[in-house]
Amino acid sequence: MKKIPVIIDCDPGHDDAIALLWALASPSLEVKAVTTVAGNQSIEKVTDNAIKVLTKARVYDIPVGQGYSRPLIGELNDGGLIHGETGLDGPRLPEKAFEKVELNSVELMIKTIEEAQEKITLVALGPLSNLARLFIIRPDLKEKIEQISLMGGGTYGNWIPAAEYNIWVDPEAAKVVFDSGIPIIMAGLDVTQKAYVTDEENEKLKAQGNEVSIFVSELIEFYRQYHYQVEGFPGCTLHDPCAIAALVHPEIFTAEQCHVDIELNGKLTRGMTVIDRIGYLEKIFNEKKERQVKVLFGVDREKFVEYLLEAMARLP
Amino acid sequence: MKKIPVIIDCDPGHDDAIALLWALASPSLEVKAVTTVAGNQSIEKVTDNAIKVLTKARVYDIPVGQGYSRPLIGELNDGGLIHGETGLDGPRLPEKAFEKVELNSVELMIKTIEEAQEKITLVALGPLSNLARLFIIRPDLKEKIEQISLMGGGTYGNWIPAAEYNIWVDPEAAKVVFDSGIPIIMAGLDVTQKAYVTDEENEKLKAQGNEVSIFVSELIEFYRQYHYQVEGFPGCTLHDPCAIAALVHPEIFTAEQCHVDIELNGKLTRGMTVIDRIGYLEKIFNEKKERQVKVLFGVDREKFVEYLLEAMARLP
Amino acid sequence: MKKIPVIIDCDPGHDDAIALLWALASPSLEVKAVTTVAGNQSIEKVTDNAIKVLTKARVYDIPVGQGYSRPLIGELNDGGLIHGETGLDGPRLPEKAFEKVELNSVELMIKTIEEAQEKITLVALGPLSNLARLFIIRPDLKEKIEQISLMGGGTYGNWIPAAEYNIWVDPEAAKVVFDSGIPIIMAGLDVTQKAYVTDEENEKLKAQGNEVSIFVSELIEFYRQYHYQVEGFPGCTLHDPCAIAALVHPEIFTAEQCHVDIELNGKLTRGMTVIDRIGYLEKIFNEKKERQVKVLFGVDREKFVEYLLEAMARLP
Amino acid sequence: MKKIPVIIDCDPGHDDAIALLWALASPSLEVKAVTTVAGNQSIEKVTDNAIKVLTKARVYDIPVGQGYSRPLIGELNDGGLIHGETGLDGPRLPEKAFEKVELNSVELMIKTIEEAQEKITLVALGPLSNLARLFIIRPDLKEKIEQISLMGGGTYGNWIPAAEYNIWVDPEAAKVVFDSGIPIIMAGLDVTQKAYVTDEENEKLKAQGNEVSIFVSELIEFYRQYHYQVEGFPGCTLHDPCAIAALVHPEIFTAEQCHVDIELNGKLTRGMTVIDRIGYLEKIFNEKKERQVKVLFGVDREKFVEYLLEAMARLP
Repeated sequence: MKKIPVIIDCDPGHDDAIALLWALASPSLEVKAVTTVAGNQSIEKVTDNAIKVLTKARVYDIPVGQGYSRPLIGELNDGGLIHGETGLDGPRLPEKAFEKVELNSVELMIKTIEEAQEKITLVALGPLSNLARLFIIRPDLKEKIEQISLMGGGTYGNWIPAAEYNIWVDPEAAKVVFDSGIPIIMAGLDVTQKAYVTDEENEKLKAQGNEVSIFVSELIEFYRQYHYQVEGFPGCTLHDPCAIAALVHPEIFTAEQCHVDIELNGKLTRGMTVIDRIGYLEKIFNEKKERQVKVLFGVDREKFVEYLLEAMARLP
Repeated sequence: MKKIPVIIDCDPGHDDAIALLWALASPSLEVKAVTTVAGNQSIEKVTDNAIKVLTKARVYDIPVGQGYSRPLIGELNDGGLIHGETGLDGPRLPEKAFEKVELNSVELMIKTIEEAQEKITLVALGPLSNLARLFIIRPDLKEKIEQISLMGGGTYGNWIPAAEYNIWVDPEAAKVVFDSGIPIIMAGLDVTQKAYVTDEENEKLKAQGNEVSIFVSELIEFYRQYHYQVEGFPGCTLHDPCAIAALVHPEIFTAEQCHVDIELNGKLTRGMTVIDRIGYLEKIFNEKKERQVKVLFGVDREKFVEYLLEAMARLP
Repeated sequence: MKKIPVIIDCDPGHDDAIALLWALASPSLEVKAVTTVAGNQSIEKVTDNAIKVLTKARVYDIPVGQGYSRPLIGELNDGGLIHGETGLDGPRLPEKAFEKVELNSVELMIKTIEEAQEKITLVALGPLSNLARLFIIRPDLKEKIEQISLMGGGTYGNWIPAAEYNIWVDPEAAKVVFDSGIPIIMAGLDVTQKAYVTDEENEKLKAQGNEVSIFVSELIEFYRQYHYQVEGFPGCTLHDPCAIAALVHPEIFTAEQCHVDIELNGKLTRGMTVIDRIGYLEKIFNEKKERQVKVLFGVDREKFVEYLLEAMARLP
Repeated sequence: MKKIPVIIDCDPGHDDAIALLWALASPSLEVKAVTTVAGNQSIEKVTDNAIKVLTKARVYDIPVGQGYSRPLIGELNDGGLIHGETGLDGPRLPEKAFEKVELNSVELMIKTIEEAQEKITLVALGPLSNLARLFIIRPDLKEKIEQISLMGGGTYGNWIPAAEYNIWVDPEAAKVVFDSGIPIIMAGLDVTQKAYVTDEENEKLKAQGNEVSIFVSELIEFYRQYHYQVEGFPGCTLHDPCAIAALVHPEIFTAEQCHVDIELNGKLTRGMTVIDRIGYLEKIFNEKKERQVKVLFGVDREKFVEYLLEAMARLP
């Protein structure tokens, strides 16, 4: 089977960590680089976390490039409220077994893309700041990118009522990415909030007994608190893993090809992904818009959890 | 049984017409006045239509007050695309059996509210221009209003991707109404798009054989075309009747008490009802917001249609 | 000489008070009514102040109609920072010699306009909330209004960097007024900041010795403090009196006929009067815009002060 | 005399060309690189123009790095309306004596800054897209930049009523630059529209007889047409040369140190430089803002023209 070559851009973050592990465990993916972006916590913390997660999986040879401390415009509003002081509160984290590379996130992306024989898939699990920087400085490289699978956005929000955190925190970056012309698979809240793990399922995960399964179950134990207490959900939603699952198990998702634009101006809606599902802009206003985004709306949750557990069992 | 005294503000419009007829047929409502608002068609046309609908029901004694030709700010963008040249394209309309009163919409509202012994319920089926004018010029009358049951808004749109037509067409008016402090029942697209009538059900309606049932089935025959062809829905959605049904059959709806605000500024989202279902503004930003709106999200569709047919059968 | 019949809408406020007195002293104006608007202070305070100013001038027969407590949308941000606790801090104010009428501001405007034999000139010295309410509820009366002479706006601000207080505090109202189709004379900051009174001139005013001259000089003594200390101006700028002087001494002003629009959306510019002096929207974007506003840019300051002193000397 | 090392970022453009020539003629400046930005014309045309202008001055050893074809977000709206089909319509242009370097604009900036022994001054004569790209991708280099002298913005506009072209065409880039923390000298329209050349003065320039003087007088002959016909100015305004003159003859300008922010959101004001001259944000809203920009407001026009003529006479 031909592997999909991916660069994973992330800000671990509990669900980033699980997504990263899922990618490492997936025979159909080849993780060529990991890059970090300020979001769930400061850039230094999420970079450390990314390396520790790789260490936990005993994967020491994927280069990790650290990103920038801020979004394109303005200061960072980090997600420490949800992910805690370290960005990965909960389980005991291993010591880092290796260090980040000298190249920063964007330089590592450029090198990886330039050296690749085939088109690269970008997986974006945090704010889109790195991808935007890449497209702003090297628009010529877009043609070497196969697609972008990202977690972000939705028809409603989880940070302000109208916007999801990853898009909200750097809307100009999101605008650059959604306008890039590259095909996008969007795992927004509409689908990710359906991709939850129940407490019983998490017990089953832990009972698998291998180190990574236990580690992930501990991540979920911490992470679910916010979703239970604040959002009142029936389980722990696994946002970022959807962007991996969409690549390795696309058949468990339902999706629609939509035009998606980013609201940069609203007083209540800045950072919203405005999804034109029906095609109103064309039908009512005669504005021809490209349906550049495959928006995931549904998921076979039980299959999703089953595949997650299988993947975790394959790791050390 | 004590009747709920209502003023119905509307812009007929196919679904307005059906809503109006449903109200007339409801023993639990007392329609004290009908006022019109420019929206689905020009103010003159919708006023004529309102009178013709009352005429069809052989109700000649409810005063009809004509509204204004424009929203608070800017020009009217009418809904002729959907409702046709007359605003009620499809069935043959009766001659008007009576004329509008001399008072305009807002003057008639003021008179009706001032003369009432008890608090009035406002039913708003079109843009919120008249209600806003009322609250802007006579804020003292708010305390004589029990509640507002309105069709408008939603977590997504039907005119631009983010906004529903009634709110989009006069967002400043909507802002005034949603900030009024009066309890609101909001039948937005989330529920109204679930409240559809299938072709088979419409045949059943026609088969009831009385004049009004046939008339309404013809309205639906015309109105469904847009929903089928443009939106791809499985039936003819009956938006406005939900705002009546929410008063006479509240038990068939599911609802949540939410804070709702109106986006006035967005480039892509102006006219959006921003619904804070989870309470993010308070939980994340510590902004205390009143949950002033009972947002309808679900409906027992079969009951909805059953009650509609029963109501139509009660009319001439 | 035919007198210009005016309704003066104001929020006294030091410069409102001086403007009102100047109007009373002007043989070419006939003040048919005074209406008040929340702005420089709360609606109760500015109404009291308006009556006390008339009392000071021994004018007891002009009806004063009280306005609303809030702008069209949102809460009032009053100008107490500049005008003090009473809105007229500084001189000792007389007891009111009469009371406000029962009609509120807009009702008094409607009655005055309807009863007038000729077209009325509206003078607006505060936020445009009352004028907007009038046009929103009675658009038919626009044709009985000759013109609007207002103090507000400018190519720069005095509250936020881009917006002048009167416009900033109720931008939607300003939008309604500037879009009304009625000819407007706009005394914005570009001219009003040139219309200042020096300390020497204020001494001369006081030395005129009549009660009102002394009263006005005391108003200026208080009011100038803000302009000196905060803005660093060489004298006390008399904003509102420019809107009176523009009617009674138009020859001392230079002006340009411009298209003016109101920015409702900006993050930094909401409430700005956007003045298209050159006609760029037409010349570059081919958008035909009416030059509906006579924007005052210059004033013969010495003449302005001379006429002010003469006017004050004519009063008791 | 120690020379100021500068990189000149430009989009020639008539006034860019004159500014570039003035810089080459200035003994107090050392032009280390020229970079181009899409603006007055497409990136290919302005790059060619930059090289032709250097060729005209017989300067063949300054590297020219070509920029990007678009602003950070969205498509380019070029200034061909004013600068003509070539971007330098009017005089006959020389053949290019050399070619652009392989490095693009931002790469050339990075190399030049990294290799410099001392801090570099950036001169920005077009949209701020290149500077923003530099700061977005290499924020660490900010500390090696002494200052930015730019032409852009003002208290009013020359493209839309509220915004000057260079800022309007890439407002996000302007936001990045004005928020960069680097000291800025801003030659906005307030000063550049005072820096005009009359027809008589242009004749004097031409009469200097050297090739470059004749070339520049021909540029002015073409460029003045727009200013005369559209804007009605008394001469040909020389916007970009002010950003050079501000470095080599700072004593002929008057300036104020102000906080300046960029409006990204307004419907009428997007791209406006909002200048807080008085300090209202701090004085009224208690928002402490850095006065990071030296805004030029006045110029000794006759000295400006005198120095321009002297500089042009020093060239071939």
